[in-house]
Amino acid sequence: MEKKVMQTYLYDFYGDLLTEHQRNIYEEYVLNDLSLSEIAQEEGISRQGVHDLIRRCDKILKGYEEKLHLLARFLNNKEKILRIRTLSRNYQNGNEAQVMAEIEAISNEILEEL
Amino acid sequence: MEKKVMQTYLYDFYGDLLTEHQRNIYEEYVLNDLSLSEIAQEEGISRQGVHDLIRRCDKILKGYEEKLHLLARFLNNKEKILRIRTLSRNYQNGNEAQVMAEIEAISNEILEEL
Repeated sequence: MEKKVMQTYLYDFYGDLLTEHQRNIYEEYVLNDLSLSEIAQEEGISRQGVHDLIRRCDKILKGYEEKLHLLARFLNNKEKILRIRTLSRNYQNGNEAQVMAEIEAISNEILEEL
Repeated sequence: MEKKVMQTYLYDFYGDLLTEHQRNIYEEYVLNDLSLSEIAQEEGISRQGVHDLIRRCDKILKGYEEKLHLLARFLNNKEKILRIRTLSRNYQNGNEAQVMAEIEAISNEILEEL
């Protein structure tokens, strides 16, 4: 997964455990795609300070994921829901019994893991 | 939702953010269904001490849920997966097109919220 995509996911899941100051700066970098220098100017702190703060946030967010694995669970489920959607879209007359059985099996897999 | 069911869910989601000591006692109470007195004896602490520790854990776990809402998101999705499973199980010859469309719509709802 691309780094910013992963950061966005981690922020979406655990961002509310950061301080407001951390959130503001992390959002500018990860969600709004500002450069370190732009954020430094905006916040009136050094570029290095912004850099360190973002690394620190990365570490905190990854730490939560290493403990809780909620993002991994979610991505695994997302994969399965995408399969269900594809199956329901692409079924053909004649194979609906098989497709329904497959959808039921995937639903069961998801429910067992929840 | 019944209290112990909610505690079990919250523990499943956020339990790894408790200390090992907190986890041990909370598990005995919530998962293994021991009484406060039984845990007190086992751990060599007072019944009141066990009581306070469990209340503290409840508060910590609820605090995470209030910030992150990951359990609420999960329960909402679970509901929808259950609907997909029921639909795939109970479709009849003749209504499969409608059922497939409904499954697709629910999949889309889940994916939009993820």
